[in-house]
Amino acid sequence: MKLISFEHNGRASYGIARADGIIDLGKHLGSEFPTLKKLLAADALDRAAALADQAADVAFDAISYLPVIPNPMHLWCLALNYVEHHKEVESAGRVQELPKKPALFLRAADSMTGHQQPLRAPAASEQFDYEGELAVIIGKGGRNISEADAMSHVAGFAVFNDGSIRDWQFHTKQITPGKNFYQTAALGPQMVTADEIADVDNLSVKTWLNGQLVQDGNTRDMLFKIPAFIAYASIVAPLVPGDVLATGTPSGVGFSRKPPLWMKAGDRCEIEIEGVGRLSNPVMAEG
Amino acid sequence: MKLISFEHNGRASYGIARADGIIDLGKHLGSEFPTLKKLLAADALDRAAALADQAADVAFDAISYLPVIPNPMHLWCLALNYVEHHKEVESAGRVQELPKKPALFLRAADSMTGHQQPLRAPAASEQFDYEGELAVIIGKGGRNISEADAMSHVAGFAVFNDGSIRDWQFHTKQITPGKNFYQTAALGPQMVTADEIADVDNLSVKTWLNGQLVQDGNTRDMLFKIPAFIAYASIVAPLVPGDVLATGTPSGVGFSRKPPLWMKAGDRCEIEIEGVGRLSNPVMAEG
Repeated sequence: MKLISFEHNGRASYGIARADGIIDLGKHLGSEFPTLKKLLAADALDRAAALADQAADVAFDAISYLPVIPNPMHLWCLALNYVEHHKEVESAGRVQELPKKPALFLRAADSMTGHQQPLRAPAASEQFDYEGELAVIIGKGGRNISEADAMSHVAGFAVFNDGSIRDWQFHTKQITPGKNFYQTAALGPQMVTADEIADVDNLSVKTWLNGQLVQDGNTRDMLFKIPAFIAYASIVAPLVPGDVLATGTPSGVGFSRKPPLWMKAGDRCEIEIEGVGRLSNPVMAEG
Repeated sequence: MKLISFEHNGRASYGIARADGIIDLGKHLGSEFPTLKKLLAADALDRAAALADQAADVAFDAISYLPVIPNPMHLWCLALNYVEHHKEVESAGRVQELPKKPALFLRAADSMTGHQQPLRAPAASEQFDYEGELAVIIGKGGRNISEADAMSHVAGFAVFNDGSIRDWQFHTKQITPGKNFYQTAALGPQMVTADEIADVDNLSVKTWLNGQLVQDGNTRDMLFKIPAFIAYASIVAPLVPGDVLATGTPSGVGFSRKPPLWMKAGDRCEIEIEGVGRLSNPVMAEG
């Protein structure tokens, strides 16, 4: 099942994405579960599934996508989680050794936007870089989750663009500012439920900037696998339904290229993860 | 005016704290402004002030404090913002030079608790440290705010305990995990409106652990002053009403002491900032 969050006629909703349109779950289930996050918190994906064969309520061209989860309690992200990406960052003089623990940082919810919505190239910098990555969406909350149990806490997967402002990322050792510019990330188009992904550790991850393939990786090359990420983050604080864990990007980012390749207004960035979806965003100037 | 957020008989509310009790603004204004954040967003502090001479509605011993702002969009924090604190961290081998830009990181809302509520000593570490600091609460939002205009965006001030799990803070260069353990920070007891603070750049900041004075600083020693912090953070993303900016801690933290001084279950940590309030929390074990 493919679930999306969207706006339609000024109303925020969520639904099932099918080839012929959207089943508006906000309309059918909204009094009980007003958001996808609430549906997950109620462990009620079966209530959605029971409606999956109904006629579509809304056409795709009538909606605006929201981030699949617009307001997660935690939007945990992992830095330097692919060895080849670590090497390219190292060659740019920015790190010395592979992290011995997951290098977690947080993004605020307003640093994200939805599928097809503009990524905002900030006025303060020209160093706007893409990062295609797999995002994990938590269904069942918990603290101190074991690696063995971790995958049972996953509701599904989405595509994430961890858009980064490189100079601001390196103002100090804390990369957080450069990772939090307003609407520089995207999450979508959809959450694919976990049952549809046979082997999450073997999915191709590709990014295109204006049609040029710039990243071509595979989730098998993650340094810390999803269970290790879940276990570690859940020691820090309880994971709650709707939490988003972005698992890091493979190599090919713009800032390690010679010359560097930056996103600018008028560009389009697309990321496809095998079986999970294709996230596409135009780039527009801030404001 | 002193404003608090609280629970009373299982209902979340906010109000004016007076010597004789609390004026329950949730009761009087809740249909228009259900939370303090909504009151700030509506620029309606005058509506609260108009009720400030009414009889108190609730006694202090009938409420539980919530963080003054329980769910800010941004809880921006500054690392290494006092020179003497930087020196003690340097002497512990953890940094080399003063940050040339504000070293921002984010805390998630659930890493905070309210006045008198327990700080949670996690099971995963014994290195639970206090950090007394001044928090700025944003009233008027904005992006790319100039330093000259910055103070006009401030609604008031509160006391913040930026409780930190030191070993987890230094797992990688990103201090975020050690700064985000569940309910290891506190914000309160109250927001004092900006009009009551004559000179925010000259306030004593003191922290006591079990009655022993462990930090004795003054806001005059901040490396990046409040306007610089506001200006910088507002370039990254629009500040919105209710955003919290924690301005960093003076020297005296536990991890740079010999031997180190950690908080443990049964302790009490208190922080007082001149004119802003005294934040007091017991320490309890996680879970």
